[in-house]
Amino acid sequence: MTLRRPAPNVTAMDTVRAFAPATVGNLICGFDVLGLALERPGDEVIARHSPADGVTIVAIHGDGGRLPLDVGENVVGVAASAVITVSGGHHGIELELRKGLPLAAGMGGSAASAVAAAVATDALLGAGLDRPALLACALEGERVVAGAGHVDNAAPCLYGGIALSRPGDPVEVVVLPVPKGLSVALVHPPHEILTEYGRSILPKGLPLDTVVAQMADVSAFVSALHSGDLDLLGRALVDRIAEPVRRSLVPGFDSVRAAALAAGALGAGISGAGPSMFALCRSLADAHSVADAMAKAFGGAGLEGADRHVSEVAVEGARVLSDEGSES
Amino acid sequence: MTLRRPAPNVTAMDTVRAFAPATVGNLICGFDVLGLALERPGDEVIARHSPADGVTIVAIHGDGGRLPLDVGENVVGVAASAVITVSGGHHGIELELRKGLPLAAGMGGSAASAVAAAVATDALLGAGLDRPALLACALEGERVVAGAGHVDNAAPCLYGGIALSRPGDPVEVVVLPVPKGLSVALVHPPHEILTEYGRSILPKGLPLDTVVAQMADVSAFVSALHSGDLDLLGRALVDRIAEPVRRSLVPGFDSVRAAALAAGALGAGISGAGPSMFALCRSLADAHSVADAMAKAFGGAGLEGADRHVSEVAVEGARVLSDEGSES
Repeated sequence: MTLRRPAPNVTAMDTVRAFAPATVGNLICGFDVLGLALERPGDEVIARHSPADGVTIVAIHGDGGRLPLDVGENVVGVAASAVITVSGGHHGIELELRKGLPLAAGMGGSAASAVAAAVATDALLGAGLDRPALLACALEGERVVAGAGHVDNAAPCLYGGIALSRPGDPVEVVVLPVPKGLSVALVHPPHEILTEYGRSILPKGLPLDTVVAQMADVSAFVSALHSGDLDLLGRALVDRIAEPVRRSLVPGFDSVRAAALAAGALGAGISGAGPSMFALCRSLADAHSVADAMAKAFGGAGLEGADRHVSEVAVEGARVLSDEGSES
Repeated sequence: MTLRRPAPNVTAMDTVRAFAPATVGNLICGFDVLGLALERPGDEVIARHSPADGVTIVAIHGDGGRLPLDVGENVVGVAASAVITVSGGHHGIELELRKGLPLAAGMGGSAASAVAAAVATDALLGAGLDRPALLACALEGERVVAGAGHVDNAAPCLYGGIALSRPGDPVEVVVLPVPKGLSVALVHPPHEILTEYGRSILPKGLPLDTVVAQMADVSAFVSALHSGDLDLLGRALVDRIAEPVRRSLVPGFDSVRAAALAAGALGAGISGAGPSMFALCRSLADAHSVADAMAKAFGGAGLEGADRHVSEVAVEGARVLSDEGSES
């Protein structure tokens, strides 16, 4: 937790471009606890020094004009400001956001923007913040803008892999091992669900026997990641918390999941608050077949043309890209 | 899960003696999900062929005359009868129970008796039941007699080690790896708590944020067992389910736990429904010091003369002992 990223040479960098990947939050059995990173798609934030004090958002691409340029109302602005504050500087920077992730899709787009902004700002300033500090800045962005941070998205987005988040201040992240070949089929139908609404319908509490069963499954899933027992991993992919109330928000939920399992998935469920659905698969080849089957099932439910994203679980999370002056 | 114990030669065995160890259930962060086995003490059941049909309990030692000899009212009788039924035989056997474990102590005594009876009966009959079948018979014993099976005790008692139980029919047991040296200090004060009462005061439900925090901790604990990260293991030893309501049943709870931590324990809590308390420690030497400190703290709370049981986490669970005609 105390690894520091190598401090770049500030004078050599006047532009930094950072990438942060899509993530699957609420990993079926790991509501609000587990998430995983895909290799792509993702959001990018470009940060440049600016003569003006503080943070300015100069452009946002790929959002259809829906996201605010106001620094205090955009996760990118708040996360970058938090990095400047934590690193103790009084810097002027300008940010450009390139949304590769759709809005309200359940693909961790808000977390990706916040994480990319934190990573880009840190690199531009040569602040050398460690990951817990960067995570805190990204979560601050989500908290200010959306009222709640999504650590099960932000943690895997920053760290890569499959991340377990222990609540607390600060949040503690445990990066879990990923069995060889474990792959993700993520299918995004042309439909939107506001994350805030997805949260508002969650149960306020759960009966004790449900809690025990869910504790057993999330534990068994984590054990299976360590031991590589993919059969156990599949059996543990049961969600008794969010899925019972959110499935009705996702048109075709039952048929999409059934299609994924029939095509060989280990398990399938809602990604984040939906409407995207995802499946875990034994191999990249399986994940391609499964994604096709899921997209077809969404089509059968009236949501034609779903986007398919297939990837091994990404080892690497957010990072500075090397083609615009970065050293990492 | 389909491993079969080698079928003994029935004709060579007219007496079988089985041992089943003490266990810690409700492993702090793993309410009703995780338990672990100690090397000793434990209960023993001696099984012999009998000319009379069915099961007879001929003697019980070490219970102060408190346990019933009636087969249908004693876990030993019900578990043995279940083994006979499952193995399809019509056998007459007689059982002798030697209680090494105190009653109403939170040391898994009921589970140990049931497991020892199932193992002894299986070996005597040469039934060769696999462990899931033996576990089901033992749990049947507890269900009939106490109204509920304690799988977090029965599973580690039978399998050894630290066992994760996934609810279901049948229960699925995942045996977790044990970091080298991980040891237990179990301290039993002269006090009794009826398990049924300990269960009756549990919350019927839990708020969602409590559920999420507990899911994170039990998952982190399981991950730490795999990775050997004992610092993380210690941080994850938090119980938000049973401890808040049961601590008041254990005289000296706060001071005993504080004494354990001050003496170097990774974490400490109530064993099962109490009043025994236990601590997990980095080494056997640590566990000895910790047990002494805990017993002293119980003394300070008016419970002088607590029994101390110190053991590495036992790799082996219940077994047939070899000195009375067994082949295992």
